[in-house]
Amino acid sequence: MAKERRTAVTVIGLGLMGSALARAFVRAGHPTTVWNRSPGKAAALVSEGAGAAGSVAAAVAASPLVIACLSTYDATLAALGPAASGLRGRTLVTLNSGAPAGARRMARWAAGHGARFLDGAVKDVPTAVGGADTLLYYGGDREVFEEHEPVLRVLGGDTVHLGSEPDLAALYETAVGVPLLPALLGFFEGAALMRERGLEAAALVPYSVRWLEMIASVLPLFAREIDSGDYSDPVSTVATFHAGIPEAAHAAREAGVDTAWREAMDELLERAVAQGLGDRSIAALYELLRRPEPVS
Amino acid sequence: MAKERRTAVTVIGLGLMGSALARAFVRAGHPTTVWNRSPGKAAALVSEGAGAAGSVAAAVAASPLVIACLSTYDATLAALGPAASGLRGRTLVTLNSGAPAGARRMARWAAGHGARFLDGAVKDVPTAVGGADTLLYYGGDREVFEEHEPVLRVLGGDTVHLGSEPDLAALYETAVGVPLLPALLGFFEGAALMRERGLEAAALVPYSVRWLEMIASVLPLFAREIDSGDYSDPVSTVATFHAGIPEAAHAAREAGVDTAWREAMDELLERAVAQGLGDRSIAALYELLRRPEPVS
Ligand SMILES: NC(=O)c1ccc[n+]([C@@H]2O[C@H](COP(=O)([O-])OP(=O)(O)OC[C@H]3O[C@@H](n4cnc5c(N)ncnc54)[C@H](OP(=O)(O)O)[C@@H]3O)[C@@H](O)[C@H]2O)c1
Ligand SMILES: NC(=O)c1ccc[n+]([C@@H]2O[C@H](COP(=O)([O-])OP(=O)(O)OC[C@H]3O[C@@H](n4cnc5c(N)ncnc54)[C@H](OP(=O)(O)O)[C@@H]3O)[C@@H](O)[C@H]2O)c1
Repeated sequence: MAKERRTAVTVIGLGLMGSALARAFVRAGHPTTVWNRSPGKAAALVSEGAGAAGSVAAAVAASPLVIACLSTYDATLAALGPAASGLRGRTLVTLNSGAPAGARRMARWAAGHGARFLDGAVKDVPTAVGGADTLLYYGGDREVFEEHEPVLRVLGGDTVHLGSEPDLAALYETAVGVPLLPALLGFFEGAALMRERGLEAAALVPYSVRWLEMIASVLPLFAREIDSGDYSDPVSTVATFHAGIPEAAHAAREAGVDTAWREAMDELLERAVAQGLGDRSIAALYELLRRPEPVS
Repeated sequence: MAKERRTAVTVIGLGLMGSALARAFVRAGHPTTVWNRSPGKAAALVSEGAGAAGSVAAAVAASPLVIACLSTYDATLAALGPAASGLRGRTLVTLNSGAPAGARRMARWAAGHGARFLDGAVKDVPTAVGGADTLLYYGGDREVFEEHEPVLRVLGGDTVHLGSEPDLAALYETAVGVPLLPALLGFFEGAALMRERGLEAAALVPYSVRWLEMIASVLPLFAREIDSGDYSDPVSTVATFHAGIPEAAHAAREAGVDTAWREAMDELLERAVAQGLGDRSIAALYELLRRPEPVS
């Protein structure tokens, strides 16, 4: 039977993302063992064909490839603790979000227990897992990546190895991820402005999507400005953003929206203008972020 | 000559965006008159075929269609003041960013001087002006829009009339625009994390672009949650974002990046978790934005 010939995979952590990962392996015909701290979450996957392990140690013992998708590295360390000795000779792959230091800690811990290790990140929502265009990237030993690449590709057709340092995926994940909450809060505030006028948030969506495309289209330019340190030929200036502050504040006040979440950004613009950066590209704000004022 | 048959257009304000607008009209063969407070900025356009008016009143007198693209509505009112009486019977179109109240003020002012009025917004960067896909939208009298639509379409092939209220473009502009600075600052912080590791901001771009596409792909869902008020079937929870706070803070500290611009967002997550919203969709933060805590 084809199923028997596929690599057995264990998925630890059956939250929204972990469940999606396990489901993708089940659907692709991999013998899939799952474990979750709160056991109830395994039921749906078992009904789809996964096997539920009674302990994290049993889950680790079931497969040469163990994929953990918990909230954080700390949660992963806590959950895997009782199974540490069983990891020897196996490959552990972590797919949570987190800082590079956490990935390095995981890498040391895995090495200390004789496991091979990759740290990766799923750059999409759970419903996209398994898609041909879905992006996941990994850092760590290239040989380990190449050995498991065909199995990992089940999770997303766009599976990338960033380099051999085990914290690279966490670095990229963290760096790429910073705009997520800020952008979403921006959309939520926009939705509040619309709804206060009796319009639906849905009416905003096509324009917000276009706007995100516009933002994406200027990132190469801003990256060039940042990498070169030359902000003197702007497409959009600090002063233009600064001039918009009172207008945006007025619109928010009129709609009774709480803008406390972004007031520090206006202060950053004020500071940039005060430092004479008004006629520079908005990307010059990078220089203020990377050089915090000395704490006195 | 074909040129003579095209509508004469006046462009007031030759900043980055105004210059791009004027250039598009010149290239499309419209007799184009320009005026800018600082006269130096007209030179490049004159060399391309525009006519420079010696005063704002002369600029208004030159064309039946007057397009103003200054920093703000206040700047526009200040600049047009000396030309107010000349606006009678002409159409004034403002294309700056600003709050709905500013657009309503402009509309009243224009009506008071016998001008017809549209307020619009350019939803792209100056270099995109004139492109077949470039989006501009307008609010105001539909008849006025339809009369000028062929000329306005010179500025972007995706030219939309949002409705007859004169402040609709400003409302959409404001609502759609909120995520811009937050998303850019997120990218700049990500660039700082990369560069601190000796990598280039440019290396982040392809992944950041993909990430913005991912964000765009979830907006319809978040809009539905917001419009229905039902956050109980999340793709991504408040708790997941909350769990990421210490990791992101650690990464920023390690790289010496100043995160003051987004600390209030972490506080918002803390508040949401404290209110028992941890297992709800991240879109539930909308409820916190639209209901500011009463000031005591
Ligand atoms: N959801 C998304 O859209 C998305 C997208 C990209 C990346 N991610 C990342 O994927 C990771 C998981 O996200 P998610 O959405 O699946 O989160 P989630 O639904 O909240 O699930 C969290 C998982 O972690 C487990 N867990 C937490 N602390 C634990 C501990 N101390 N011991 C054992 N298990 C523990 C939970 O177990 P219990 O069930 O027992 O609580 C649950 O299985 C996060 O790092 C997230 O940033 C998520
Ligand atoms: N640049 C973009 O990427 C972009 C994209 C979409 C929308 N927009 C919007 O387009 C508008 C213009 O942006 P921009 O990038 O062209 O800005 P800009 O390059 O800073 O130009 C500002 C223009 O406003 C004029 N101005 C300001 N205050 C004035 C006053 N009191 N009296 C007379 N003229 C005054 C300036 O004249 P001087 O030359 O004499 O200073 C200049 O022509 C803004 O609302 C902006 O938000 C810009």
